[in-house]
Amino acid sequence: MSVLKPSLPQGTRDYGPEDTACRNYIFDTLKSVFREFGFMQLETPAMEQLVTLTGKYGDEGDQLIFKILNSGDYLSKVPREELTEISSKQLLPRISERALRYDLTVPFARFVAMNQHAITFPFKRYQIQPVWRADRPQKGRYREFYQCDADVVGSASLINEAELISVYDKAFNLLGIRDTTLRLNNRKILAAIAEYIGRPQDMSVLVIAIDKLDKIGAEGVDKELEQRGFTPEEISRANLFWQIKGTASAQLSQLKELFKSSETGLKGVDELETVLALHASGPSFGMAIELNLSLARGLNYYTGTIMEVVADQATGSIGGGGRYDDLTGIFGLKGVTGVGISFGADRIYDLMKEQQLFPPSAQFTVQVMLGNFFAPAESGLYILAHRLRSLGITTEFYPDLVKLPKQLKYAHQKHIPTVVLMGEEEYASGKYLVKNMASGEQQLLDEKELIAYLTKLHESETNN
Amino acid sequence: MSVLKPSLPQGTRDYGPEDTACRNYIFDTLKSVFREFGFMQLETPAMEQLVTLTGKYGDEGDQLIFKILNSGDYLSKVPREELTEISSKQLLPRISERALRYDLTVPFARFVAMNQHAITFPFKRYQIQPVWRADRPQKGRYREFYQCDADVVGSASLINEAELISVYDKAFNLLGIRDTTLRLNNRKILAAIAEYIGRPQDMSVLVIAIDKLDKIGAEGVDKELEQRGFTPEEISRANLFWQIKGTASAQLSQLKELFKSSETGLKGVDELETVLALHASGPSFGMAIELNLSLARGLNYYTGTIMEVVADQATGSIGGGGRYDDLTGIFGLKGVTGVGISFGADRIYDLMKEQQLFPPSAQFTVQVMLGNFFAPAESGLYILAHRLRSLGITTEFYPDLVKLPKQLKYAHQKHIPTVVLMGEEEYASGKYLVKNMASGEQQLLDEKELIAYLTKLHESETNN
Repeated sequence: MSVLKPSLPQGTRDYGPEDTACRNYIFDTLKSVFREFGFMQLETPAMEQLVTLTGKYGDEGDQLIFKILNSGDYLSKVPREELTEISSKQLLPRISERALRYDLTVPFARFVAMNQHAITFPFKRYQIQPVWRADRPQKGRYREFYQCDADVVGSASLINEAELISVYDKAFNLLGIRDTTLRLNNRKILAAIAEYIGRPQDMSVLVIAIDKLDKIGAEGVDKELEQRGFTPEEISRANLFWQIKGTASAQLSQLKELFKSSETGLKGVDELETVLALHASGPSFGMAIELNLSLARGLNYYTGTIMEVVADQATGSIGGGGRYDDLTGIFGLKGVTGVGISFGADRIYDLMKEQQLFPPSAQFTVQVMLGNFFAPAESGLYILAHRLRSLGITTEFYPDLVKLPKQLKYAHQKHIPTVVLMGEEEYASGKYLVKNMASGEQQLLDEKELIAYLTKLHESETNN
Repeated sequence: MSVLKPSLPQGTRDYGPEDTACRNYIFDTLKSVFREFGFMQLETPAMEQLVTLTGKYGDEGDQLIFKILNSGDYLSKVPREELTEISSKQLLPRISERALRYDLTVPFARFVAMNQHAITFPFKRYQIQPVWRADRPQKGRYREFYQCDADVVGSASLINEAELISVYDKAFNLLGIRDTTLRLNNRKILAAIAEYIGRPQDMSVLVIAIDKLDKIGAEGVDKELEQRGFTPEEISRANLFWQIKGTASAQLSQLKELFKSSETGLKGVDELETVLALHASGPSFGMAIELNLSLARGLNYYTGTIMEVVADQATGSIGGGGRYDDLTGIFGLKGVTGVGISFGADRIYDLMKEQQLFPPSAQFTVQVMLGNFFAPAESGLYILAHRLRSLGITTEFYPDLVKLPKQLKYAHQKHIPTVVLMGEEEYASGKYLVKNMASGEQQLLDEKELIAYLTKLHESETNN
């Protein structure tokens, strides 16, 4: 057999023990906040029917969905003579019926529609699972990455929006990520802007263009709108809104003036005011709130509040979400409104790693290692290892009779704080040599003393 | 847009909040045992290079690997005239370069080979992630299922085998699964049987046949061997071994006699004796150990100890594993021996559900719900909800001003034990009506009393 140079698919990565521990620290922190607000966990399969996913993320999104080849003789149903003419796109539905989920929102909508009779609404769920996108990999962008979503469906109350903002605020504070800002807007404002400039039917064009503001700048947005057939006058009327600056309440006053004859616009303003007032009445954990009228959030299912979280030290947003009024409609369940947020776990991980925000307690370390270099002691140490574990002390018994330095190096690299040794002398005296790996300090203890020592050490660790 | 009837790919399933909680209970229990023995967690991507996976699971296995279609214009590199002649199998490597992992062992071997210079051996890792197989779905067999693996690589010591048996024993005991039996065998015994009957080169044929014993019975195995060209005499010589019964030590004596001139056979017997003796010297948590000479474990990479766990109430095995001597060789890292076990999480889940083995504490429940049916009280309740959460009490504020029975039904279905209400009267008196959902008991408390009441309730729950 020839030798394979092992490699990973582009845009994916392994998580070794230390990285996995750090990621679990993020997930566990988010879970604790989700639960505090009454969200329950849902998990859906990695694969969905291809038809469940296509058409939900725009043409560009459809291209980025990873499709799974039908198993077995997947060409068997395709007449061969057709194959010379057919395009990749035409052949696709005939050789692939399943795909990897692209986000957690569509699978969630599919779940709600499938289980609508069993669910008690409002349904508050969180979901922490990987998603896959055939995007070009780059810094901070992976082909497999985790999303952490919390959604409430079946409730139109803006209390949900306010609570989700608190979830963000509390979670980032617990993770130690400072200098976060939540950018807030409302799709009704964008709809009203489209109305105001006289192109009510073109809100989605407006959304797609303004969504690129961070990347291409204000001039780029103008140019894109021009290419999409907007007149210079329409563009300058749109710019009226995006030039509004100042505090949230100053911005809202100006909007009220501009929207005085737009029902949709005033509804958007009213929703923003309510959310901001609710948030102001509750606790703050340090996240700034900023009204940002040019925030668009590309996805086409949003209908009300939209938001995203940025941090001074992070590239791109580390969270985003919004309200949607008909996510489950495509699956036959009409009129269910919902609102949700997502945490970008991989960007959060990269940021926390860069900024060294993981506390030492995020790492799991084995408490004691029993060395193994004197054959007659081996069977006794094997039993001792079991005994220590039964007392709740995580214990490794070095399995091979090899030279001591190798074993100590192992303990050192695994950050094991205590090593217990039994050589010929100790064996004869029935005592263990107990080594503190940090200080190098050693002492001779009998089994009873050893257990007392480790139990005490273990207790003081647990209390810290 | 037409309406889609939402459905899931065959062989996959959603896990709603209660199911997810139960699954987490299993995973957390296994993690605690893995850690107790010094295993560290690893996670690898769902996708691997197709070449990493193919050829590792036999021809049948290769067919069951889910392949991912190359993204974009995947046919662009295939000359169209070739397409009329080409078979599914021939086209495959030209349109698919990635696949979903089929197990956790091969990705683990790939990881070890890729990171050989950074790893301190012996490397003890556990991994809990889904795997995908295009198997025909049936009861207890899914196309997406979780594997929970623990492996030690870089150590030939049989202490590892003994400790992994204890991991099984302890984990099943903690999960409350009784009547478990670990079946033990050694591939060297099977190799020696092949030698003994005069077909040393045909061990793998023997393994494939005997592996089906549970499904097709002893006669079926004989028939299969006959079809594979074994003579009646060879078959009856093989049967000599599979008819060996009795205690482990009785079986081992008979084997020693039959293998007296087979070095491989005696090595296998010796390894089994050592593992059994080590296990006997340690604690037992109720799992029976049985020497089973017809246990084969289909996978072709095993070279020493093989084992599987069955439970009286479960269909098929709920765990299995063994020692392999050259798993990483194909990836360029020679001579690394290892031993590992796997837990069949989905079968364990099905079994525990059927037998009602999940304790109530496996479920997460919200501690208190604040009802919301009197508008003037709404903003105060919103703030109270935040205050309770800051005290560590998981709290839901019902977001919509709807009729009380609907809200109480919601609390009931979510198993929330306490509901706090504020109607017109309570609002006037500044008190909350606190309802115990189990007993129906109600009392009026001011905010200070309410917080004292909930804190006390919360403490007593935590202590139970």
